Amino acid sequence: MTKVLIFGHQNPDTDAIASAISFAYLQNKLGVNAEAVALGEPNEETAYALNHFKVDAPRVVESCANETTQVMLVDHNEAQQSVGDIKELEVLAVVDHHRIANFETANPLYYRAEPVGCTNTIILKIFKEHGVDIPKEIAGMMLSAIVSDSLLFKSPTCTDEDVKAAKELAEIAGVDLESYGLEMLKAGTNLSTKTAVELINADAKTFPMADKSVRIGQVNTVDVNDVLSRQSELEEAMAKENADNGFDLFVLVITNILDSDSVILVVGEPKEKIETAFNVTLENNTAELAGVVSRKKQVVPPLTNAFNA
Amino acid sequence: MTKVLIFGHQNPDTDAIASAISFAYLQNKLGVNAEAVALGEPNEETAYALNHFKVDAPRVVESCANETTQVMLVDHNEAQQSVGDIKELEVLAVVDHHRIANFETANPLYYRAEPVGCTNTIILKIFKEHGVDIPKEIAGMMLSAIVSDSLLFKSPTCTDEDVKAAKELAEIAGVDLESYGLEMLKAGTNLSTKTAVELINADAKTFPMADKSVRIGQVNTVDVNDVLSRQSELEEAMAKENADNGFDLFVLVITNILDSDSVILVVGEPKEKIETAFNVTLENNTAELAGVVSRKKQVVPPLTNAFNA
Repeated sequence: MTKVLIFGHQNPDTDAIASAISFAYLQNKLGVNAEAVALGEPNEETAYALNHFKVDAPRVVESCANETTQVMLVDHNEAQQSVGDIKELEVLAVVDHHRIANFETANPLYYRAEPVGCTNTIILKIFKEHGVDIPKEIAGMMLSAIVSDSLLFKSPTCTDEDVKAAKELAEIAGVDLESYGLEMLKAGTNLSTKTAVELINADAKTFPMADKSVRIGQVNTVDVNDVLSRQSELEEAMAKENADNGFDLFVLVITNILDSDSVILVVGEPKEKIETAFNVTLENNTAELAGVVSRKKQVVPPLTNAFNA
Repeated sequence: MTKVLIFGHQNPDTDAIASAISFAYLQNKLGVNAEAVALGEPNEETAYALNHFKVDAPRVVESCANETTQVMLVDHNEAQQSVGDIKELEVLAVVDHHRIANFETANPLYYRAEPVGCTNTIILKIFKEHGVDIPKEIAGMMLSAIVSDSLLFKSPTCTDEDVKAAKELAEIAGVDLESYGLEMLKAGTNLSTKTAVELINADAKTFPMADKSVRIGQVNTVDVNDVLSRQSELEEAMAKENADNGFDLFVLVITNILDSDSVILVVGEPKEKIETAFNVTLENNTAELAGVVSRKKQVVPPLTNAFNA
């Protein structure tokens, strides 16, 4: 039987890593020879969770076609966020909570998406539908993903189902949701050790919008000024990323996880789409976006609309 | 609250109509103001099912944006199979069992696809997940769709889950699966009212093979000779279609739904590819293909291989 590789998106966040781990565990229980892999190293937040629950980080791969023909995607579907040789592979299944775009198959497949805050909230349902018990450490990774994606339930992407799922998983994992969650989020905000390039790319995704390529990165912090004190260094790195990769516009969303507000830093063109999308005026390439914490729900849709207007 | 329109693909078959009806019923139970509509009139098979279970045919629409902004798609996802103004609409949900292609959203959505034989097999699962009871007449339409898509379980696209779902639904609907199913399929084989052109194009698709363009149509019948009695009229229509549309070869698959065998009628060249593909000798432009009922799984692949050999 062919081995099936399961992985989340490039620049993996906690949900991308944890989804691969939890869905691969489930698939193995269902008789599939599956292995969780990752398209990058865990970030500091994810490393905290893996360490806390004593789970090994998935093996990092740069391609899949050299070792298998069949894959399952978690926490993403768009080709440009996936493994480089995705076009050579058969996608057997997708579990995701994002929009669908740049995704195409030759054959029918299993596709499970719901507009909830976290992929692992959906995976928990699938565990239940199959009547498979969740081990303590897998539950721990799953709840870490929900805490991460929902910023401890403060993000507008967070639904009642996410809260309910996290509580249920915390019980299985045997942790106090609030205190564990805050410690894990704080572990992810240690930005001082990162270079400007690392920082802008740590959680960045590329979105085709009209005929432009828009790169949107996000960093979580407990002090936005900590990040903005490096503005010129960041802008230089963003401009270089644009030039090297053909991005037209780079948007860095700097999110204060305590206040649930963001400041955006923008390099490239057309900047006026940013101003239209968020009804702001950029000053020194920055603007405050009050109440904005979710790239998926509060940044990508208005920006997509502005580009398509 | 905006009304949400729910519909299957153009040229609707029984699954396209029944999925819209069953999923709209479920959505209404879940508090959504949903209406099942259709992108065309029911065919004779579907009309038989609607009449048997005393269900009204969904209203036929040619566009949606004039009356709503939000839709749900069943039994299809590809834009070219959907309503003409699909690009102007927000797709809230999809339930489907086909490949995914030419489909894109701006926002996260509910997407449920599984590689089973019928959309209603998946919809039955969703009913159960929400603990919603299925009324007798809705169950009847759902089982009609499974019978239709699986040719009463004889198609190679049919899975164990489809059989199990149909049996469960037949119990709710209070019908004998075999006898009702056969009557319904027979109702769809009333070909006498169709012109030769209508008959060869009713369910035809074009396939590029090597440097040739191959048109493959399929008709279901309970008596192949009924169709073959019109052979000269059919050949004339097929030759005209080839000439008018640049097809090299037209293959009409005449399928006996009682015996699960087919006879093919072939017009155009290269006919020897047909003989190689199915290991038969054409006589008077026809050949018997024992056990062949699925164009997708049993006709297209061997023919493609013969052209590429």
